[in-house]
Amino acid sequence: MQTERAMVTRRDLLALIGAVSGSAAMYHAMTSLGFASDSGYKGPIRLEGDPRGASVLILGAGLAGMTAALELRKAGYDVRVLEFNSRAGGRNWTLRGGDSFTELGGFRQTCEFEQGLYINPGPWRIPYHHRALLDYCKRLGVTLEPFIQLNHNAYLHAAGAFAGVPQRIRDIKTDFQGQVSELLAKATQQGRLDEAVSKEDREILMQALRSWGALDGDYAYKANLISGDFRGYARAPGGGLGAEPVPGEPVDLSEILKSRLWRYLQNFALHTFQATMFQPVGGMDMIGKAFAREVGDLIRYGAKVTRIQQDDRGVTVTYTDPDAPATPRQAKADWCVCTIPLSILSQLPIDVGRRMKAAIDAVPYSASVKIGLQFKRRFWEEDEAIYGGISYTDLPVRQIAYPNTGFNGAGKGVLLGAYLFDGPNAYEFTSMSPVERVARAVEFGARIHPQYRTEYDNGIAVAWHRVPFALGCAGRWTDEARAQHYDNLCQIDGRIVLAGEHASYIPAWQEGAILSSLDAITRLHDRVVKQ
Amino acid sequence: MQTERAMVTRRDLLALIGAVSGSAAMYHAMTSLGFASDSGYKGPIRLEGDPRGASVLILGAGLAGMTAALELRKAGYDVRVLEFNSRAGGRNWTLRGGDSFTELGGFRQTCEFEQGLYINPGPWRIPYHHRALLDYCKRLGVTLEPFIQLNHNAYLHAAGAFAGVPQRIRDIKTDFQGQVSELLAKATQQGRLDEAVSKEDREILMQALRSWGALDGDYAYKANLISGDFRGYARAPGGGLGAEPVPGEPVDLSEILKSRLWRYLQNFALHTFQATMFQPVGGMDMIGKAFAREVGDLIRYGAKVTRIQQDDRGVTVTYTDPDAPATPRQAKADWCVCTIPLSILSQLPIDVGRRMKAAIDAVPYSASVKIGLQFKRRFWEEDEAIYGGISYTDLPVRQIAYPNTGFNGAGKGVLLGAYLFDGPNAYEFTSMSPVERVARAVEFGARIHPQYRTEYDNGIAVAWHRVPFALGCAGRWTDEARAQHYDNLCQIDGRIVLAGEHASYIPAWQEGAILSSLDAITRLHDRVVKQ
Repeated sequence: MQTERAMVTRRDLLALIGAVSGSAAMYHAMTSLGFASDSGYKGPIRLEGDPRGASVLILGAGLAGMTAALELRKAGYDVRVLEFNSRAGGRNWTLRGGDSFTELGGFRQTCEFEQGLYINPGPWRIPYHHRALLDYCKRLGVTLEPFIQLNHNAYLHAAGAFAGVPQRIRDIKTDFQGQVSELLAKATQQGRLDEAVSKEDREILMQALRSWGALDGDYAYKANLISGDFRGYARAPGGGLGAEPVPGEPVDLSEILKSRLWRYLQNFALHTFQATMFQPVGGMDMIGKAFAREVGDLIRYGAKVTRIQQDDRGVTVTYTDPDAPATPRQAKADWCVCTIPLSILSQLPIDVGRRMKAAIDAVPYSASVKIGLQFKRRFWEEDEAIYGGISYTDLPVRQIAYPNTGFNGAGKGVLLGAYLFDGPNAYEFTSMSPVERVARAVEFGARIHPQYRTEYDNGIAVAWHRVPFALGCAGRWTDEARAQHYDNLCQIDGRIVLAGEHASYIPAWQEGAILSSLDAITRLHDRVVKQ
Repeated sequence: MQTERAMVTRRDLLALIGAVSGSAAMYHAMTSLGFASDSGYKGPIRLEGDPRGASVLILGAGLAGMTAALELRKAGYDVRVLEFNSRAGGRNWTLRGGDSFTELGGFRQTCEFEQGLYINPGPWRIPYHHRALLDYCKRLGVTLEPFIQLNHNAYLHAAGAFAGVPQRIRDIKTDFQGQVSELLAKATQQGRLDEAVSKEDREILMQALRSWGALDGDYAYKANLISGDFRGYARAPGGGLGAEPVPGEPVDLSEILKSRLWRYLQNFALHTFQATMFQPVGGMDMIGKAFAREVGDLIRYGAKVTRIQQDDRGVTVTYTDPDAPATPRQAKADWCVCTIPLSILSQLPIDVGRRMKAAIDAVPYSASVKIGLQFKRRFWEEDEAIYGGISYTDLPVRQIAYPNTGFNGAGKGVLLGAYLFDGPNAYEFTSMSPVERVARAVEFGARIHPQYRTEYDNGIAVAWHRVPFALGCAGRWTDEARAQHYDNLCQIDGRIVLAGEHASYIPAWQEGAILSSLDAITRLHDRVVKQ
């Protein structure tokens, strides 16, 4: 494989540079060879050259649209933005007490959370390697705090396993790793890996498995203070007299395997979900609001695009506004950056070539439902010592996510009581009324946290296929669709270029929207200045 | 083993309760059976019964002493506290710009950090299962934020491995787990685990290893988008055209084994270090200050205890104060709770029995050195995408810990540039002058972060064996010493009882100090009210 060989060569080169020149030289070599970079983001975009007054109409004031607006204005363009909603941000969205929201079908909900409590119906976490988004947060003054993805004390739960009793993540994680290590250590000891591992490595492997798997001197993983140091204790160590720790009994590997709770462990190891993750202090929409502070003067809100036309002189976009829905209006510009989700764009007449149109029509949108539940107290912290993070279950609610802010506080608290993403349950919940969705989330959640029954206060539910400005959560590319359509979607078609998470390899993530936008406007600008 | 059998029985009982009565009943059963509890802490202490005006003299205004002061006053005692320092908190301590500190040997340092930057020379993190400490934080209004222990993008480093190039934790962690999984999956496939694992379990084990270890359809762990989803990519997925991800080459298992970097992986799995961990917003001493807001009126500062006497009527403590060191003063009370570290107490004349005296003399104190370094910018975030967490190295500095606050901010930043705990390097650094310690930390750290050379600003170093109020970091119990002396240390000797982390099974942790204190005053109070 070409890539592998290239990487090995670079690794060897680095080792050589390190040996000869010391680590400072090597660090610079690492950076210039791309080893130290985490993202396609190369730092603030530089759009050099004079656009000579060219105008750009941007459709959509989500993160892709506002990134384009901010950077193109800075580069000298005459920029306007049309936005369907009466606020900026798009799927970058936070619901707080007092916010109202009407979904397709007419159900209107008003959020009744206490002051300071919220849910993010759309994006809710930021990986450390989403360098573009983090850079915009820095430049725009958005304050960040950690988002806890892995909380060892949260639960893994399967309705059909352990008599329905939720298991602490730390137990399943530690006991699986410990018993897997024991199996491998014993196989190694018995000479069964002699072909696969050199003699020299075998000895170190045994030590490593013992260290990593919490094995005892006989390479066994069992109830003792060694495993207890990892999985916790039946009785924790304390202070004063009679305070010695008592180990707990590991969960048997066979039980773990049959429970299938191991499926959830990768949620803590995937690159996308690795610590350190972030959330903006106060809600994800702090990012959208920060962008809007920069480009809000360019945005026309309440503009529902109904048609996108172009010819070789410019682009004409027809839209209506809520005050006069029967009176179409028009906006014209030299160029258009269209960030309207494909779920909506595919329903609009648009003057683009056959290939781009086929691409626009080729991407279904994921079903996703998020349900926020307010409770009278933070019982998950008070009763169960769960601070932030996520419990996973095979019940239809899938996830219960605990707030990553206001830790250890008194007063009310809001959980994300359900996060369904694709699959039949997401469609089932989308088909329910919001009241029913919330009721079901409370009912299912009570099987994990019985305190729901007495502490529940109020809730709000967002089913993305019913959200008028998105009609789905995010573009759902298959490998086949991507091979056939992706490049066609991203090309500049005459005077129109598309941007958004759907035009990226990081679908459903804000980073995808921003990187897509930066790539689109870089190519657009290149075309403009070379004209 | 008695404990194991008891635990199995409880587990079976729970399953039965769950099956018969549903999970709510089971949850309550879990709680009452102790499964849901994480710590010896049983909630706020209840000292019932009237102490009838009994007086207690508390020695030391660290967390153990102030816990005793707070609770004993509330229970009706006449309480006074003698404290050596001019501040409360003891080892609960934060150094900020403008703070000065003189160590044994006479070296005086003044911290030159910018406003808002700090290091915690003593405790710096709080596990989620330290229930007593967390409860006091809640009751006393101490705001918490996450302490990042595992940052996948921080480094593991060994001077003699990988040509000295630091490796991302995510690479070592993922590649070790992946290749271990591959070995075990292949051994399973080849029938080499047939004795150890049932046929039914073997099939699930293969699936689990594939999921957990990022293996491909052939149960191989190698450079592809499957491993890339876990370890990251040579080129990350991006937006727009030409943005497809390119996988990186895993680090070979043999290299990982020989590097011994696997030794550090347990730092992210141990119960003590599991996410979610916390730190107080603004510095660890926010806890000491919060206690002092409650009990500060009881504390006499600058009181150096020189002798502790008792007879059957009461306790007499002799002390000096800095204004008149030649004039011994005396304080008398009915009872004494002594929280003076054993490193110091062992040097004082104290009227206790032979057994307690032997215990006081039996516990050496750990050497520990922490070094804070201010830099002109947060280069670890800007250049290397390291947000919080800890890099581990076999260089003498051992750890480089990144600040868990002010993420993604502009301006200066402070690293913990060294955290040595026991071992020869800790003694070596203790023997240096503070200036030399700092210089060495900068020199070693530059091998991991070459930016040190240009960005270093100033530093401060605390070597705990030279800290006058502690003479070491924490009690260092061996199993043998504990078997022989621990219970003797914790007994009430006449009218004196000891408390502190040294009188706990959680040495060096604030939770140990508080639990020890709660246990000591519970027993003391019991004796007082039964007199």
